[in-house]
Amino acid sequence: MGFTMTVSHPAPSSYEAMFGPTVDLINSRLERYLTPEAHGISNVDEIEGPSRLWEALRYSALSGGKRIRPVLAVQCCLACGGNIESILPTACAIELVHAQSLIHDDLPCMDNDDLRRGKPTLHKAFDESTAVLSGDALLAMAFGLVTRETPLSEQVTTGKLLEVISEFSSVASVRGLVNGQYVDIHYEGKPFTAEVLEYIHTYKTGALFTFSVRVGALLAGAEPAIVDCFTVLGRKLGLAFQIVDDLLDIQSTSEMLGKTAGKDQVQQKATYPALYGESASREKVEVLVHECYELLECMAEGPSAVDVGALKVLTDFICHRIH
Amino acid sequence: MGFTMTVSHPAPSSYEAMFGPTVDLINSRLERYLTPEAHGISNVDEIEGPSRLWEALRYSALSGGKRIRPVLAVQCCLACGGNIESILPTACAIELVHAQSLIHDDLPCMDNDDLRRGKPTLHKAFDESTAVLSGDALLAMAFGLVTRETPLSEQVTTGKLLEVISEFSSVASVRGLVNGQYVDIHYEGKPFTAEVLEYIHTYKTGALFTFSVRVGALLAGAEPAIVDCFTVLGRKLGLAFQIVDDLLDIQSTSEMLGKTAGKDQVQQKATYPALYGESASREKVEVLVHECYELLECMAEGPSAVDVGALKVLTDFICHRIH
Repeated sequence: MGFTMTVSHPAPSSYEAMFGPTVDLINSRLERYLTPEAHGISNVDEIEGPSRLWEALRYSALSGGKRIRPVLAVQCCLACGGNIESILPTACAIELVHAQSLIHDDLPCMDNDDLRRGKPTLHKAFDESTAVLSGDALLAMAFGLVTRETPLSEQVTTGKLLEVISEFSSVASVRGLVNGQYVDIHYEGKPFTAEVLEYIHTYKTGALFTFSVRVGALLAGAEPAIVDCFTVLGRKLGLAFQIVDDLLDIQSTSEMLGKTAGKDQVQQKATYPALYGESASREKVEVLVHECYELLECMAEGPSAVDVGALKVLTDFICHRIH
Repeated sequence: MGFTMTVSHPAPSSYEAMFGPTVDLINSRLERYLTPEAHGISNVDEIEGPSRLWEALRYSALSGGKRIRPVLAVQCCLACGGNIESILPTACAIELVHAQSLIHDDLPCMDNDDLRRGKPTLHKAFDESTAVLSGDALLAMAFGLVTRETPLSEQVTTGKLLEVISEFSSVASVRGLVNGQYVDIHYEGKPFTAEVLEYIHTYKTGALFTFSVRVGALLAGAEPAIVDCFTVLGRKLGLAFQIVDDLLDIQSTSEMLGKTAGKDQVQQKATYPALYGESASREKVEVLVHECYELLECMAEGPSAVDVGALKVLTDFICHRIH
C-alpha cells in the first residue's frame, strides 16, 4: 500500500512537545473543578467521610493519562477558529466521563483490572463501593460542568449548550459507552462476527471520540457541513485509536502501557487483531490515517479554511503511538 | 404536642386515588422513554446483547414503586399554575436517577440487598456488571431527557433548562446522592453524631426531594420567593420521608415494604430512630408535617395564591404512609 509512505512517523515525544501546553491547561482546569469549593461546598471537613470521596475523585481523574479526548476537543475547536474558553469546560467534562468509564470498567465484576495509568485501580487503592460511587459522581458532574462553566457567546448560545448536553447524554449512555461496554463483556470468550466487532468499536470508543471532535467544531460555531466532516474524522480516529489500543495490548508491556498488557487474549475479547490478525490490523490503521489526512486536506482547502496543522499531528500520534 | 391533632391521617389508598392518574402518566412516559426507538436506535436486534441491556433498564425503572419524587415534581408544577408537559420529562428524569441510585446502592459492595420493590434486585435478576452499567445508563440518560424532551415556552426557556441541568447534576453527584450514600456507608457500624445523621439525610434523600419540589416551581415559572418556599418545603418533606423510611424499616415487614425490612439495625446504619428512639422520631415527623402545613397555608394565602390542596395530601401521605 504505497500511500503509507506519505505518512510521517513522528517521535512519540511530538505529542508532548506540541500539546503539552493544552494538556497542562486541561489538567489545571480539572484540578480546579475537582475541588469541593468549585461546587460551592464549604463543609467537606465538618464530618469524617466526604473528604475521602474527594480524594478518590482526584486520584482517578488527576492521575495522568494522555488526555487525548479533551485535547482533540480543544484542537478541533481552535482549528475552526473557536475560543479555547468555549471548549475547556466540555473538554474537561469529556475527560471526567472517560475517567468514570475506566473506573467502572476496571471493577472486579467487569474487566477486573488492578492497574491503570501505572497505579492501582481505584477499587484497589480505595474499595469497590468508593469506585462505584466515584464513577457516578464524575458522570453526573460532567453535565453540570458544561452548563455552569461554559461562557455564553455569539457562537455558544444557551440552545447550543442544550444540544451539547443531549448528545453528551446519549454518548455516555445507550448510544455509546454503556452499550459498547455491555456488548464487549457479553462476547468475552464467545465467538464473534465482524458486525459485533464493529458495534463494540463504534460505541465503546468511537462515540466519545466522535463527540470530542464534533463538539469542538460545534462550540467554535462551525457550519453544519464542517461539523459533518469532523464527525467523519472522529469516527475514523476513534476506530484507529481502538485498533492501535488492541495492537499495543499484544505488542507492548504493562510498564509501557500503565495498564495490564496481554489481557485481551486472556479474557478472549472481541478485538480487531483477534479477528483479522496483527498485520491486517496495522494495515487498517494506515488506511485510516490516509483517509483522515485526505479529509483534513479537504477541510483545509474548503471555503471555511480549517487550520488542520495540529490535527494532522494528532492523527499521527493517535495512530502511531507506542503507549 | 397538641398540633398533631390538626393533621388528618388519610387512608393509605388516598395516594393511589388522588395521584393514580399522575403515576399512570409518569409510568407511560417512562415506558416510552425506555425504548431504543426513543433514543433513535434502530439496530438493537442486529447483534446479540444490546436487547438484554434494555431489558435490564426496563426491569429496574418500570418495576412499580410509588413514584413519589416525580409526582411531587408534577404536583408542585401544577400548584404553581404550570403546564404538565413542561415538567413531565424532568419528573421522569428524576425517577431514572432515583432508580440508578437504588441499583448501585443495592450492589453487594454497597448495601448488598436482594429485594427491591418486591422483586430480586437487578444484580440478582441479571448480574453485577449489568447492574453497574444499567445504573450508568439511567444516570446519563436523565440529563438528555430534560434537554431533549422538554418543550420550550415562555416559562421554560433554554436558559432555565441549563439551570435545571446544573442543579440536577449537583444533586446527582457531589451535593446529593453520591456524597450522601458515601457517608451513609462510611458510618455503618460506627458511632455517629447528630451532625453525621443530618448530613446523610440532607444529601442522601433530601437533595433529590428538594430538587423535585423546586424544579416543579421553577418550570412553572414561579417567582423566586415562591421557589424559595418550595425549597424549604422540599427539605422538610425529604427529612420526614427519610425518618418514616427508617421507622418502617423497624416496624414493617419485607412483604409490606417490598424490600428487606430490619436491615438498618443489622447493618448498624446511622438512622434517626437509632439516635433518638422511635417515639421521638415519630414526634419529629409530626413536627415536620405541621411545619409543611403552615408553609403551604402561607403559600396559598400569599399574592401568588399557590393551589396547595394536592400538596397537603402528598405531605400527609409522605409522613403517614405505611409502605
